[in-house]
Amino acid sequence: MRATVYYGRHDVRVEEVPDATLWEPTDALVRVTHAAICGSDLWPYRGQLLIYGMNGRMGHEFMGIVDAVGAEVRTLKAGDRVIAPFAFSDGVCEFCGAGLHTSCVQGGYWGAGNDGGQGEAVRAPFADGTLVKLPDEVDLSDSRLATALATLTDVCGTGHHAALSAAVAPGATVVVVGDGAVGLCGVLAASRLGAERIIMMGRHDSRLAVARRFGATDEVHERGDDGISRVRELTSGGAPHVLECLGTAQATQTAIAVCRPGGTVGHVGVPAEPVNLMDLYDRNIAFRGGVAPVRAYIPELLEDVLAGRIDPSPVLDLTVTLGEVPEGYAAMDQRRAIKALVAVS
Amino acid sequence: MRATVYYGRHDVRVEEVPDATLWEPTDALVRVTHAAICGSDLWPYRGQLLIYGMNGRMGHEFMGIVDAVGAEVRTLKAGDRVIAPFAFSDGVCEFCGAGLHTSCVQGGYWGAGNDGGQGEAVRAPFADGTLVKLPDEVDLSDSRLATALATLTDVCGTGHHAALSAAVAPGATVVVVGDGAVGLCGVLAASRLGAERIIMMGRHDSRLAVARRFGATDEVHERGDDGISRVRELTSGGAPHVLECLGTAQATQTAIAVCRPGGTVGHVGVPAEPVNLMDLYDRNIAFRGGVAPVRAYIPELLEDVLAGRIDPSPVLDLTVTLGEVPEGYAAMDQRRAIKALVAVS
Repeated sequence: MRATVYYGRHDVRVEEVPDATLWEPTDALVRVTHAAICGSDLWPYRGQLLIYGMNGRMGHEFMGIVDAVGAEVRTLKAGDRVIAPFAFSDGVCEFCGAGLHTSCVQGGYWGAGNDGGQGEAVRAPFADGTLVKLPDEVDLSDSRLATALATLTDVCGTGHHAALSAAVAPGATVVVVGDGAVGLCGVLAASRLGAERIIMMGRHDSRLAVARRFGATDEVHERGDDGISRVRELTSGGAPHVLECLGTAQATQTAIAVCRPGGTVGHVGVPAEPVNLMDLYDRNIAFRGGVAPVRAYIPELLEDVLAGRIDPSPVLDLTVTLGEVPEGYAAMDQRRAIKALVAVS
Repeated sequence: MRATVYYGRHDVRVEEVPDATLWEPTDALVRVTHAAICGSDLWPYRGQLLIYGMNGRMGHEFMGIVDAVGAEVRTLKAGDRVIAPFAFSDGVCEFCGAGLHTSCVQGGYWGAGNDGGQGEAVRAPFADGTLVKLPDEVDLSDSRLATALATLTDVCGTGHHAALSAAVAPGATVVVVGDGAVGLCGVLAASRLGAERIIMMGRHDSRLAVARRFGATDEVHERGDDGISRVRELTSGGAPHVLECLGTAQATQTAIAVCRPGGTVGHVGVPAEPVNLMDLYDRNIAFRGGVAPVRAYIPELLEDVLAGRIDPSPVLDLTVTLGEVPEGYAAMDQRRAIKALVAVS
């Protein structure tokens, strides 16, 4: 089969690899129909965090059709259409039970030594715990719907995790730091949770347009200290709820600085750099979040997508074929696209 | 009057300064009877964070007797005995109303350009909001009781803030990082809040003895990775509630590492160094706390001290006179004492 493999900075290749097969009786074999490229995939692409290892498989966002299941799989059968969260999990341990599937004691991530999402097929461990079956009546030939569903593999649930972690509730005033796909999904999640005022920090017209469509009520184009001053002015001293959706030290400091004393920063950006916590300490800002347990959120978000109550599809503003995956990375790296969908089959 | 002044590393002097006086109609003038030296006072003593500035007044922990009040002070009169929290606050702003007095819009800290606690008298701004009156029947000639009450100015409330921030509740398993006065008060607070198991990380016999008296059920003497492994072994993977009471990067990393996925670190140590947050992110550890709003906690803790339900006095294991304050700093710096009480008058 063909799959995406990491060769180094700016060197991502789609090549022949051994076919995915069933290893364990709890596995399912999934033929990938749609994958996506994640903002965090740009870390290795840029030669920074090598999350997939050298020559490792790439991609952790995919959906597809079950081709075969192991003898112990009870809830899925060949032909079922499924969404995979970006981490696999057994569904039965203490942490899965608590809704924290990314801390599953048997869990792990796609890619590296496992099959990656950006390929033709994936061996999915703990299929009953990991995969979420789509209702049979869902029509994936509706490309808008398929695109919206593809966001449930990661960014839509990750934005939701940021909003939940920041304790967003009806009537809330919220600031979102980061105008990538996750930040935009954070706007959508805050809006879905009933926030009244959502201030988006960003400066790219096309992204701000999506933010407005998702429910942003205010925009702050300035960066750094100017951006902080502007948000503090708009909120008379900071917002009680802030979503940090980038992970750089600067974004984290900004998120803390625009948070109201005693407020909460919900963070989902990979924290690639050490952070100075003095401001957080001085003003008792709570810092909650982390790698999103997207598996826990897919059912409710799926219901809202299928009912048309939310439409996260605009964050995937470029579609490439599997062979064009390297071009998808380049487009995201150069900010020509917010996020790329990979139409695999 | 005499007061403690900062002259540089290892150079703290008690000298004549202008008498404290009333400036504003909301001020009270407090004659200090008892003060204390804080672990955070050691930062400037060691030439690190100069929190009082060069030649600034020192000390933020004191109690005493009201000598005079401004025309607008309504709840206090000359002769009242009062406890001061380590920060002053107006008692009426949004943040004071929310119990976050350390973010008071008109608030500030003792020392530097204000009178410091380690002196004969202090001008106390917003006396109605800041000071807590002791019941008239309290007998301060009882030196154990006076010592216990002196901890309410800072460390007892700060330990309580760490425990509250870590969401300690009845039946909880708790780890305390830091065996200074604040960490020990964190043990006491966790015990008071009903924790069932309290694991103290520390290695000094005299401090561990106080921890046991305060309710610690387990001790981990190892440091660094060995200490982390030992706590994880004792808790089958980490505790849901961790109190970080030091503030160094190493202590913070340790607190995060011994926390169970999805758990909470309550932090009150001054975060003097940048911190790597990758482990916190990977395991969704919540990080809550900061500079403690001790003013909010004094009434309930005072009630418990007066009723004999808690006795934090053992953390003050050295008593010096005002003239001996430099010796108090040296004793704490050299870890010959946990914490020094200053018997001023």
